[in-house]
Amino acid sequence: MNLRTPSAPEVLDAQQRLNGIAVRTPLLRSDALDEQLGLRLLVKAECLQHTGAFKFRGAYNCLAQLSPGTYPGGVVAYSTGNHGQAIATVARMLRLRATIVMPADAPRVKMAAAERQGATVVTYDRQSERREAIAGEIAHRIGALVVPPGDHPDIITGQGTACLEALQDLAPSTTVDAVVVPCGGGGLAAGTCLAVAAHGAQSAVWAAEPEAFDDTRRSLAAGERLVNARLNGSICDALLAPTPAELPFAINRRRLAGVLTATDSQVRAAMRLLFRELRLVAEPGGAMALAALLAQPAQFAGKTVVALVSGGNVDPHVFVEALLAE
Amino acid sequence: MNLRTPSAPEVLDAQQRLNGIAVRTPLLRSDALDEQLGLRLLVKAECLQHTGAFKFRGAYNCLAQLSPGTYPGGVVAYSTGNHGQAIATVARMLRLRATIVMPADAPRVKMAAAERQGATVVTYDRQSERREAIAGEIAHRIGALVVPPGDHPDIITGQGTACLEALQDLAPSTTVDAVVVPCGGGGLAAGTCLAVAAHGAQSAVWAAEPEAFDDTRRSLAAGERLVNARLNGSICDALLAPTPAELPFAINRRRLAGVLTATDSQVRAAMRLLFRELRLVAEPGGAMALAALLAQPAQFAGKTVVALVSGGNVDPHVFVEALLAE
Repeated sequence: MNLRTPSAPEVLDAQQRLNGIAVRTPLLRSDALDEQLGLRLLVKAECLQHTGAFKFRGAYNCLAQLSPGTYPGGVVAYSTGNHGQAIATVARMLRLRATIVMPADAPRVKMAAAERQGATVVTYDRQSERREAIAGEIAHRIGALVVPPGDHPDIITGQGTACLEALQDLAPSTTVDAVVVPCGGGGLAAGTCLAVAAHGAQSAVWAAEPEAFDDTRRSLAAGERLVNARLNGSICDALLAPTPAELPFAINRRRLAGVLTATDSQVRAAMRLLFRELRLVAEPGGAMALAALLAQPAQFAGKTVVALVSGGNVDPHVFVEALLAE
Repeated sequence: MNLRTPSAPEVLDAQQRLNGIAVRTPLLRSDALDEQLGLRLLVKAECLQHTGAFKFRGAYNCLAQLSPGTYPGGVVAYSTGNHGQAIATVARMLRLRATIVMPADAPRVKMAAAERQGATVVTYDRQSERREAIAGEIAHRIGALVVPPGDHPDIITGQGTACLEALQDLAPSTTVDAVVVPCGGGGLAAGTCLAVAAHGAQSAVWAAEPEAFDDTRRSLAAGERLVNARLNGSICDALLAPTPAELPFAINRRRLAGVLTATDSQVRAAMRLLFRELRLVAEPGGAMALAALLAQPAQFAGKTVVALVSGGNVDPHVFVEALLAE
């Protein structure tokens, strides 16, 4: 794995690479949300990105830089879903072979989407097997590159382009006090920190995690990478990385303002609000930043806050449950 | 009412007026949709516009041109919902009073949203009362301007800016064969025809109506404006205008390529596809253009088609019903 720490200006390079390729997703707002939260909220709708998640950005930024022919077996990704789907889609665009290692309990829509893109899907048991080991073994056998969801500088800077766009799309007179992003392994948070620096902004970047899966919050407090007690048991399937990824953690510990958390119930409330007020389909993990603002609104009272909705790949029955949970 | 026929270049003026005010909504695509339909589909996601519908564009373009003080009573709109909500929102932005006349069976979310914007909502019975008469009487009494949903040149050219953006956002090498838009009174279709001309494109513009509410299709065939046999009985509440509006019809009869129709069942299928493949929340009427393509795909086989998703204001139980109808 390439663990070189990327510099902030590399987010600008990534944006050049993605120009005309990624969807320039809109920044949305509503009076009703502002009134409910007591702050000025801007929602970056990355659920509208290709493959339904910001992961497309990092995947393209990374794979587009591979030298042709270096990896005859193409690329291998292990993923709770969205990263794998992004790698599969980008590999098809760039005519690379792709193998995706997914937990056996990942949403069916995510597996089907990867296979539709021509990728080979290999499943594993989240409780008893290590995805990194399986991916490494396959890559060695077929001559492929393992593309991790966070531990690569080009993945991190690619993810950062979402926040960069949001800052660029605002009038120069608008000061963004805080940017809140969902956090699993921490790659999006790290890229967002670099994007804020690349834009010359002073915005505080906050990561948001499921309450019982707050590995990044505890790791930052401890100064070392800690693991979650459990590996499942939250509806936020996209945010259940067992521990912070190494390279993102090195960036986040220096640059992150802090970590917020929210419960599954607050996540469902955020999904309902995004549906009703902004006509967005968010998957549970995708709604985590807004859920964290719902959980801790006082901390941001009167501030201008960008919340990133990171993905929208959700099984219909999970979405229906959130809509009707009120 | 101002029934001056607008010229195509006025759509460009409207775009200038809306620049930085309206959301530049994204143009989205998916391999799965292309494969299912057998064509190259580009979805203009106007469900992400302010107020959740394209109606914001026409409302702003019209109200922003009113001379201050001419109408002490502000503006009056009659509407199945989205137009009224747009007028209420824009009136608040421009500090005008607003009165909205809505059918008593309109979705609750639409009434609540108008009231939240500070508008006065007056309801009427769709079967026994004429909304135009009620609006006219109120306007006369309080010194207000009636802003019709279609019969105004500035409304029509404002609505046209959605299609204009879509055409501008494509590479110059992309030829759009057809643009399909949902059709109630016909204002969006008329504006879209003007937008195609303003852009210098040759795209055929198709209107899409609910099967049992095909007043525009029959009116074009007859050469005069005919009425629908019924005034309710489709899930597409936004498309149940009783007859084509006069000014849009004058434009549509010269410029429209034709009219497509779809059933409620096809509309629900389109809503499901938009949820699953593009993470969009479409209201029933908003999904009509895609529903019509699902109903008549052979007509557009191999073509490049822009389908406009016109709105996303849908009661949760209606949306859930569509998701689970499969």
